[in-house]
Amino acid sequence: MPKLIKKRSEKAGLPPGSLVHIGEEKTQESKITIMDYDETHFQEKEIKTIEECFAFRDMPTVTWINVDGLHQVEILEKLGEYYGFHPLMLEDILNTDQRPKMEDYGKYIYIVLKMLSYMDNSNEIVTEQISLILGPNFVISFQEKKGTVFNPIRERIRNDKGRIRKMGSDYLAYSLLDLIVDNYFIIMEKLGEKIEILEEELVTQPTPETLQIIHHLKRETIFLRKAVWPLREVVSGLERGESSLMKESIRIYLRDVYDHTIQVIDTIETFRDIVSGMLDIYLSSVSNRLNSVMKVLTIIATIFMPLTFIAGIYGMNFKYMPELEWRWGYLMFWLIMIGIGAFMLIYFKKKRWL
Amino acid sequence: MPKLIKKRSEKAGLPPGSLVHIGEEKTQESKITIMDYDETHFQEKEIKTIEECFAFRDMPTVTWINVDGLHQVEILEKLGEYYGFHPLMLEDILNTDQRPKMEDYGKYIYIVLKMLSYMDNSNEIVTEQISLILGPNFVISFQEKKGTVFNPIRERIRNDKGRIRKMGSDYLAYSLLDLIVDNYFIIMEKLGEKIEILEEELVTQPTPETLQIIHHLKRETIFLRKAVWPLREVVSGLERGESSLMKESIRIYLRDVYDHTIQVIDTIETFRDIVSGMLDIYLSSVSNRLNSVMKVLTIIATIFMPLTFIAGIYGMNFKYMPELEWRWGYLMFWLIMIGIGAFMLIYFKKKRWL
Amino acid sequence: MPKLIKKRSEKAGLPPGSLVHIGEEKTQESKITIMDYDETHFQEKEIKTIEECFAFRDMPTVTWINVDGLHQVEILEKLGEYYGFHPLMLEDILNTDQRPKMEDYGKYIYIVLKMLSYMDNSNEIVTEQISLILGPNFVISFQEKKGTVFNPIRERIRNDKGRIRKMGSDYLAYSLLDLIVDNYFIIMEKLGEKIEILEEELVTQPTPETLQIIHHLKRETIFLRKAVWPLREVVSGLERGESSLMKESIRIYLRDVYDHTIQVIDTIETFRDIVSGMLDIYLSSVSNRLNSVMKVLTIIATIFMPLTFIAGIYGMNFKYMPELEWRWGYLMFWLIMIGIGAFMLIYFKKKRWL
Amino acid sequence: MPKLIKKRSEKAGLPPGSLVHIGEEKTQESKITIMDYDETHFQEKEIKTIEECFAFRDMPTVTWINVDGLHQVEILEKLGEYYGFHPLMLEDILNTDQRPKMEDYGKYIYIVLKMLSYMDNSNEIVTEQISLILGPNFVISFQEKKGTVFNPIRERIRNDKGRIRKMGSDYLAYSLLDLIVDNYFIIMEKLGEKIEILEEELVTQPTPETLQIIHHLKRETIFLRKAVWPLREVVSGLERGESSLMKESIRIYLRDVYDHTIQVIDTIETFRDIVSGMLDIYLSSVSNRLNSVMKVLTIIATIFMPLTFIAGIYGMNFKYMPELEWRWGYLMFWLIMIGIGAFMLIYFKKKRWL
Amino acid sequence: MPKLIKKRSEKAGLPPGSLVHIGEEKTQESKITIMDYDETHFQEKEIKTIEECFAFRDMPTVTWINVDGLHQVEILEKLGEYYGFHPLMLEDILNTDQRPKMEDYGKYIYIVLKMLSYMDNSNEIVTEQISLILGPNFVISFQEKKGTVFNPIRERIRNDKGRIRKMGSDYLAYSLLDLIVDNYFIIMEKLGEKIEILEEELVTQPTPETLQIIHHLKRETIFLRKAVWPLREVVSGLERGESSLMKESIRIYLRDVYDHTIQVIDTIETFRDIVSGMLDIYLSSVSNRLNSVMKVLTIIATIFMPLTFIAGIYGMNFKYMPELEWRWGYLMFWLIMIGIGAFMLIYFKKKRWL
Repeated sequence: MPKLIKKRSEKAGLPPGSLVHIGEEKTQESKITIMDYDETHFQEKEIKTIEECFAFRDMPTVTWINVDGLHQVEILEKLGEYYGFHPLMLEDILNTDQRPKMEDYGKYIYIVLKMLSYMDNSNEIVTEQISLILGPNFVISFQEKKGTVFNPIRERIRNDKGRIRKMGSDYLAYSLLDLIVDNYFIIMEKLGEKIEILEEELVTQPTPETLQIIHHLKRETIFLRKAVWPLREVVSGLERGESSLMKESIRIYLRDVYDHTIQVIDTIETFRDIVSGMLDIYLSSVSNRLNSVMKVLTIIATIFMPLTFIAGIYGMNFKYMPELEWRWGYLMFWLIMIGIGAFMLIYFKKKRWL
Repeated sequence: MPKLIKKRSEKAGLPPGSLVHIGEEKTQESKITIMDYDETHFQEKEIKTIEECFAFRDMPTVTWINVDGLHQVEILEKLGEYYGFHPLMLEDILNTDQRPKMEDYGKYIYIVLKMLSYMDNSNEIVTEQISLILGPNFVISFQEKKGTVFNPIRERIRNDKGRIRKMGSDYLAYSLLDLIVDNYFIIMEKLGEKIEILEEELVTQPTPETLQIIHHLKRETIFLRKAVWPLREVVSGLERGESSLMKESIRIYLRDVYDHTIQVIDTIETFRDIVSGMLDIYLSSVSNRLNSVMKVLTIIATIFMPLTFIAGIYGMNFKYMPELEWRWGYLMFWLIMIGIGAFMLIYFKKKRWL
Repeated sequence: MPKLIKKRSEKAGLPPGSLVHIGEEKTQESKITIMDYDETHFQEKEIKTIEECFAFRDMPTVTWINVDGLHQVEILEKLGEYYGFHPLMLEDILNTDQRPKMEDYGKYIYIVLKMLSYMDNSNEIVTEQISLILGPNFVISFQEKKGTVFNPIRERIRNDKGRIRKMGSDYLAYSLLDLIVDNYFIIMEKLGEKIEILEEELVTQPTPETLQIIHHLKRETIFLRKAVWPLREVVSGLERGESSLMKESIRIYLRDVYDHTIQVIDTIETFRDIVSGMLDIYLSSVSNRLNSVMKVLTIIATIFMPLTFIAGIYGMNFKYMPELEWRWGYLMFWLIMIGIGAFMLIYFKKKRWL
Repeated sequence: MPKLIKKRSEKAGLPPGSLVHIGEEKTQESKITIMDYDETHFQEKEIKTIEECFAFRDMPTVTWINVDGLHQVEILEKLGEYYGFHPLMLEDILNTDQRPKMEDYGKYIYIVLKMLSYMDNSNEIVTEQISLILGPNFVISFQEKKGTVFNPIRERIRNDKGRIRKMGSDYLAYSLLDLIVDNYFIIMEKLGEKIEILEEELVTQPTPETLQIIHHLKRETIFLRKAVWPLREVVSGLERGESSLMKESIRIYLRDVYDHTIQVIDTIETFRDIVSGMLDIYLSSVSNRLNSVMKVLTIIATIFMPLTFIAGIYGMNFKYMPELEWRWGYLMFWLIMIGIGAFMLIYFKKKRWL
Repeated sequence: MPKLIKKRSEKAGLPPGSLVHIGEEKTQESKITIMDYDETHFQEKEIKTIEECFAFRDMPTVTWINVDGLHQVEILEKLGEYYGFHPLMLEDILNTDQRPKMEDYGKYIYIVLKMLSYMDNSNEIVTEQISLILGPNFVISFQEKKGTVFNPIRERIRNDKGRIRKMGSDYLAYSLLDLIVDNYFIIMEKLGEKIEILEEELVTQPTPETLQIIHHLKRETIFLRKAVWPLREVVSGLERGESSLMKESIRIYLRDVYDHTIQVIDTIETFRDIVSGMLDIYLSSVSNRLNSVMKVLTIIATIFMPLTFIAGIYGMNFKYMPELEWRWGYLMFWLIMIGIGAFMLIYFKKKRWL
């Protein structure tokens, strides 16, 4: 299960703007890639030092700088200084326990959101924080880990597919956003399948493990909710915002992303409803099974207790017990026993216990 | 039960406006029908190629193009090109996992909603996505499957019944909307009947199957909610919208549809309340039955355990047991047994266990 | 229990404004009564044909036309035509499955609400739809059934009690509204009594029937909620509305009705809270009783099982069993039995099971 | 427990403004006291007829008329006539089932709220309706019963403590409000103590009585909620209102009362949360106890059933049973018995049932 | 567990502005420290009498007066008089049962909030009320107890770290706020760990103690909610407020604190959801265990009851019982016994009870 909370306590008391990386410490180097393009021109390279990208700042082409890995704080420091970013924003990029949000700093817009991916081996949802900085002719994106998630967009830029090369940096930012939200649908599908399998199991053969899976699913929906709900504000903030960085023509695309976000939220709420209903069903069905176990016990006890009592009677050693002397006493005993047994069975049949 | 979610993952990463049909793949051809009318004139035909309808675009009469079946993507492409529709809208039409919404593109309004129908054989609610494009003198409607659902309106146009022939394309769009919402009432009736039958059963004879039906009903209400709630915004958006495509005179009709939508939502919420209350009732009544089973067991055990013990005593082989020698020992034994049994029964009677 | 939903499906597909009566079909004739009054003048009569009331339309006096019974559709048709009412409004009057609402048609205001009454014999709440049309000098009211519910107002008009004869048609409409809302308090009282009786029962002697009554009460509160919540909007709509039909002096009275409505809603919400809490109490108290049943069983079993075992031992036929030969063996047996029994009882006493 | 609802039905159908006292009928006379003061002057007296207070209306000093007991309707009638109060307001004063509210009648403000007090003998919360009329130079207060609740303010006026004598009637009204809200804190304390005692009990020794107390507490919180929530609107209405009767300098005091109200509401909500959580805890802990009872039963049965069976075997009368003849047969029987018993105990120990 | 409510009743009836300390009475003296600084200058001292700080009021440097301990009411009185603070504010500072709030008094802003800290020894969350008064060139802070919580900021001022010495009193107030909110994250971490440990326990080995811990956690989240929710309004009030005391440049920092607050609230809500889900899981898992206990009982009873009955039969003393005479009777008895036992075991295996 995902950790409930990230260690953030070490930051308490530091002055605002202190650049401390919160998250898993990694030892590899950060990977920085640059794509620079306009309608006619295209350039892509991986750079070693962040200074290599500074030259692109003042060129009219759209520049996309992608940084994989946040533990090298000095990259951010240099970027911040050269581009004039606010220290609080840099702090937020490093703090990977951020709530999705959008902040308009005037000359650039800062967007932070959660990328979700599904680990097939561990059957778990993994979250990664993505930060985007949108400037007039650049987009800088930060990922916690090296990943291939943005590759479809890289392909579209390389091969000049769709309209991406004809549009500005705002369209690039939108494309990244759209890709991330589209990824949520994949998570939803996986989760939906899990729920459907669980529903099947709940009905046919509920076990104590089913209970654990329900609990696990419940936590996953709570977790997803926390990641996705704020996204709504982020996207609607971008759509309605008055920033000149988001051109009018982009608004319709953002509305589309907004619709998708709402749909993801809708789906999560539906999942929540279903999963929390499952627990009630589970409890009821456990009670049902208890009921049927108790019926078996009661039937057995109700049949054999009187019989055993009667057998006990004729095991008594009273001197004068006339039945014991009778020729057909034993036979009669058996007839009575069978009679009582049959009567009981008919009685339970009538009561619908059998 | 309806699938929780549609496969949408294959679209992730494609550029916006990619026309991919999401839904069940069908092999039949799409069916396109055209109705063109004004107060005096009426024409109806089924066409093979979508180009046949282009001639109607520039005629002053109201044209209703209905497309059944979405898998032939080229129909949409051509329509989109000729009428100048936005690619994002075309993408939404094909994506049948859409949330009901209304979008005003200025020259046309796009409405997407869910048509619900009740399959009598499988006892299930089936959903179908309906897209409407309302233009100044045309309405284009898209259905996933061939269906007869719009026939009442076709009849009204053919026979010039009501005021439909005297009004514009906005009245036609309203009529389609109204028909779809009216259909919801039929679903509500079916569901209401199901719930009433279930309530009866819950009270008289709850079984483990009852539990499954409750779960099923709960999911259906969750499902309906997801389909109907957004409709409210759609209709109120149309009513309050500033689009010149919806004339002032239509507003009062839209308000009527809005009232109906609210009533459907109200009914769903009522159903939800009742169904979720049922689960509690079920659990309580299972507990009640367990209680009564346990009472039987306890009564039997409480009566026969002491009796068996006493019978056991007189089965002992102690050399010196004076009672065994008594002349009326056995008789006294029986009297004591009956005494104990009677006392127990009276005791349970008093405790109201019998 | 009240039906969850009324058959409305037969209307699906009809053009808007189709006058179809939805509700129980009645065979009696509708009853139409007219009261016409101003400060000095008063006239009351029952008419056979609706045309008889047309004369009053253009007189300056206040005219109150009350129609009991909606199945004679032609009455509405003629009224609608003569007074120029909108067909959608006429449709709403006939459709008795309406949600309470208020609609301002400019020249007249249409109000629809639910009249509740309590059937003492069946112990059930019965609902009836009341429609009011308020014009500059008339009020037309429609009831589903003949009833005496408006009699107090008729009395006040006849006897010139209060200020009703001095005021216009808006005050008459307010008076009718006020009467209907006052009636809700009676329902609340009945329901409150029912709940208090049930609470008593829940605590002293919960039976499976209690469960059914709780379920019944829950449904009744859900049902009332659906009828009363929309009323809030209706009354506040009238109070805040800009219609010149509601004079400024009437506003303060409407605010009073609004306060009453809020109080009814408050009471229903309180009832809901209490009733849904009852189910939890019920479940807990059933579990409590199960617990006490099980304790009896366990005490009996724990006392008699070891005793029966020991009695069984001395019933064995081993050749060499020294105890059997002892002079005081049987006595000792009894002492040991009583000892074990006493010890058990003390043990259970200590464990507070007794 | 407090009655859920007051008999209000007798008012249904009466014209608005009918002065009917709703509440317990009392036979004593109402008690009317007058305090008249300004910075330099102070006068206090108890009067027999309401007319004695009329003289103060036109004096510049602040006059506080307090009426204890509402059953003498004529007092209200005369007051209403002399001061020109609206009949609807007078009706509201007499109707003691009023929802807390504030109404600005222009020349005076009407405030109605609930005074709560805790009956130490019956352990119950008692509610009383307080009505305040604030005029430019007077405050008229109505209580249902004679009480000492306003005494602290009387003391402050008599002894010229605080700033009350320097301020106008609005400050007096504020002081009364503040006193009533302060009283709520006392109720909260009592309730808080009750809850803490109950929590203790729930954990150490839950009994069926605990269940009743939880239910009682739940109803009390529901009841309090109904009394206190509307107060928020009342106070914020006064604070933000544009009435010239509330001077600007008073606003800061009203904000203070508002803060207190919010805190009371906060506390009630916390109580609600805790109390409704208690029911779940209770149910779980009853289940836990059932579990432990059942374990005892199962352990006893599992140990003694096989033993009794074996004892039964050697009580059989088969002719040829070699064990019976053995010299050490009886000893071996005992060894086997003890072995089985010991094994069972170890088994249950391992399963953590002991 | 934290007390639900503080004794506040002694204040009821006192005139507004009465300075009464509500909280634990302490006997030590209050500790007052002063820090006075600007960019170039820095002075720090601990003073004995409050008058010593008056000199700083009219100096242009930023003065931070910190008072630890509220029981010396005269300190507040003198401060209030010299600085001209409103008596209601002074009252609020002393009343440590305050809801977090922000009040703009024009010349100064009053902020009250809760400082949370985690007592490692008692495993409990302790709350302390912090009051801040922000003036144009001063901040006065009040704590209930002597504490080191503000030390990081003192360090930053002493060592001129960050920008704090370059900024005004508003930045100091922000820094204190930020520190308090950062502290909440530490509490969240602790709580998160507790919950994760509990989840582990819930799944592997739920005991009655688990129930108590869940209840405890639930109360803690309710408690935290009450402390943190109002903070949101406080911070957003400061951010959006029009007070000139909060300079424009500070707004961006306040937005950062606001984001943190939202995140704390989000986390608390997540915890609430998880904890309340736990109770359902607990109940279900207790039921599961009951089920498995009952199965053991039923299996034992179902196997041994028939066997004991048969053994009882052959212990009977009927004269004519042919089986007893048979040579292999006893052997056959054993074969039948083993047969029945084996059949039962296979039956239970098939029913998946074993």
